[in-house]
Amino acid sequence: MITLASDFGSPYPAAMKGVLLERTDARLVDVAHDFPRQDVRAAAFWLRETLPYFPPATHLVVVDPGVGTDRDALVVRAGQCTLVGPDNGVLRPVARELAGDGALEYFRIDDDHDDLVPVRLGNATAAKSTTFHGRDVFAPAAAIVHETDRESLAARAVLSPTDDVVDLVLPEATVADDRATGEVLVVDDFGNVVTNVPGTSLEGRDAVRANDERVPVERTFAAVDPGERLATVGSHGYVELDVNRGRGEEAFGLEPGDVVVLELESESG
Amino acid sequence: MITLASDFGSPYPAAMKGVLLERTDARLVDVAHDFPRQDVRAAAFWLRETLPYFPPATHLVVVDPGVGTDRDALVVRAGQCTLVGPDNGVLRPVARELAGDGALEYFRIDDDHDDLVPVRLGNATAAKSTTFHGRDVFAPAAAIVHETDRESLAARAVLSPTDDVVDLVLPEATVADDRATGEVLVVDDFGNVVTNVPGTSLEGRDAVRANDERVPVERTFAAVDPGERLATVGSHGYVELDVNRGRGEEAFGLEPGDVVVLELESESG
Amino acid sequence: MITLASDFGSPYPAAMKGVLLERTDARLVDVAHDFPRQDVRAAAFWLRETLPYFPPATHLVVVDPGVGTDRDALVVRAGQCTLVGPDNGVLRPVARELAGDGALEYFRIDDDHDDLVPVRLGNATAAKSTTFHGRDVFAPAAAIVHETDRESLAARAVLSPTDDVVDLVLPEATVADDRATGEVLVVDDFGNVVTNVPGTSLEGRDAVRANDERVPVERTFAAVDPGERLATVGSHGYVELDVNRGRGEEAFGLEPGDVVVLELESESG
Repeated sequence: MITLASDFGSPYPAAMKGVLLERTDARLVDVAHDFPRQDVRAAAFWLRETLPYFPPATHLVVVDPGVGTDRDALVVRAGQCTLVGPDNGVLRPVARELAGDGALEYFRIDDDHDDLVPVRLGNATAAKSTTFHGRDVFAPAAAIVHETDRESLAARAVLSPTDDVVDLVLPEATVADDRATGEVLVVDDFGNVVTNVPGTSLEGRDAVRANDERVPVERTFAAVDPGERLATVGSHGYVELDVNRGRGEEAFGLEPGDVVVLELESESG
Repeated sequence: MITLASDFGSPYPAAMKGVLLERTDARLVDVAHDFPRQDVRAAAFWLRETLPYFPPATHLVVVDPGVGTDRDALVVRAGQCTLVGPDNGVLRPVARELAGDGALEYFRIDDDHDDLVPVRLGNATAAKSTTFHGRDVFAPAAAIVHETDRESLAARAVLSPTDDVVDLVLPEATVADDRATGEVLVVDDFGNVVTNVPGTSLEGRDAVRANDERVPVERTFAAVDPGERLATVGSHGYVELDVNRGRGEEAFGLEPGDVVVLELESESG
Repeated sequence: MITLASDFGSPYPAAMKGVLLERTDARLVDVAHDFPRQDVRAAAFWLRETLPYFPPATHLVVVDPGVGTDRDALVVRAGQCTLVGPDNGVLRPVARELAGDGALEYFRIDDDHDDLVPVRLGNATAAKSTTFHGRDVFAPAAAIVHETDRESLAARAVLSPTDDVVDLVLPEATVADDRATGEVLVVDDFGNVVTNVPGTSLEGRDAVRANDERVPVERTFAAVDPGERLATVGSHGYVELDVNRGRGEEAFGLEPGDVVVLELESESG
């Protein structure tokens, strides 16, 4: 199984699928192709929250603002999974998650290697572009990786071990007494504001004051009337600031990267 | 085969796919993940018009404004198909269609059952959320249902027979003499206004007066000039109010739920 | 393998998938369903740039502004691939590409043939519509074609050889000395303005003056600061007018079909 994730929109992912299917019979599964454009951190978050639910797979990820520059192209072996994508940190948070207690292993893709040259049906020659490495580097590399026994990756001429890789750590919130200070990680498609404040900080709390607005702590959206605000523990385990049947990011005026200060209130307090 | 339909947008459906694929090798087919948000009636319409074209399958449907409340999680056996989703009526119109002359059978999903707990690769524990039952209840249930002989569903500990279920009936139009009174069921992606007036009411008619605008009855969009309005029998068998290469809902000022009165005109009349 | 491409948005492509899967176990791969609405030329461009990367396949294409009129429904045998879609030119540029030095063969689909009548589960009869031939003509035809040996297509009663087909040729640019005159073929999802000026015309050039704005010629987006304009050879081999991390079509004020005049500048010149 090979999953695909990118910020390519449409129809560029189809060219990647063609390249993959020309080289492998693997099942292909789209994760998303509408990640926020060139936003490495948002993609890293969504991958970390999504890919661990898949069975062992090869994960192809292309969110690549540095395409064509000298940034490396990477293969990461993480637990039972293998990740393929640009070396800009996007693969790191999910790789750590997938590896569990195990070590991560990195391989640099030789992106000029002949093994990667795409094939085109008909007369036209497939020339490697400087702007679409998803098609011309990462997809063929993912097919090669998927068709290679995981223990034999180092033997593939197109790969060489490396440990000089870009890291990315998603920011952590500070929780002390009745106050949590964190930031907005992403706003999801529903408009829910996903913070990095651990959901456990809402235990025993009745309400939070978020940037000076007091909202109730609820377990479900439907606990408040349509259009009303709430704080809840979202499906990622973090505190979310939401509106039932509405858009939290508009009601709270928050966007990714914004600082969030939550005053944690309980009835007894 | 398992189909997936939801109002989740992106990337939440991918987590459902991961959960499914961790448990089954079934082919997965997306129906849509952009159903109008939390609009049970629109989803019920689209499912009824789409799923009967598939071969027998397990259909996973998550349009779930009551997620986390005490609404039931359902499995419906309908003809040769099995449907999985929240008990809010969304499954009923398509289930009746798929069952033909046969009876519908319902099973309540025990959504706290250990069999449903998702698996995550790596170290993190997968905790059941109160806001994403698509991932934590319905997807694992659909995988279980799909891997269970349909006659044996009642024997699965996670399911118990029930007949206390929410119904939903799409509204029907009234057609009498030269007048049809109905409502807008959905507006499709092209902007076509799909009413619930049966297409047969246009037989022998040359034009309709729709909310006092007279438009010709045509068999194809291209029968009128680009930008011009028409009434036609759409692919669902209902009267649609459309604009050739334009958006009917803007030209007619109609949206889902609006009442539509059609005066049916013929040259001879 | 059957690929699907259309301008249908959602959820209409799902009905086509149901019809296909009722008749074939082929792998289905979406190319795109958000091609610019009823824009035959844009679809022809994207297909030509995408489908050759796939292994041999049946390609189902429905961009069909003339649905329901007397335009033909076509099957095209091109090299190792078979294309199915309306006879409006959309299949021609990619067919020529896929055929390489080989000839193209055309078959007209008898769209009233009983073999095409879709099957519906349950009691309802599937009636052929006049507005959704993707579901009622092209998808069943694609399934039939896919399940038929390519040499035996002419023996299928639903197909008859023809050579009276609509052509479409994407426009070519004129390059002379220091000036290229072409037009905008498409604007991609990133906002990149894809012209029909061959990328080779940028060889040895440092800058271009595009409609009187001077922009540097670069190999990568990241060679200029975010928000800055550039000209580059895009992944299709044509000159693109882009903005790093921004939208070229807004910065240059260009849209598909617009004429583009590029003055080609070099330092030595």
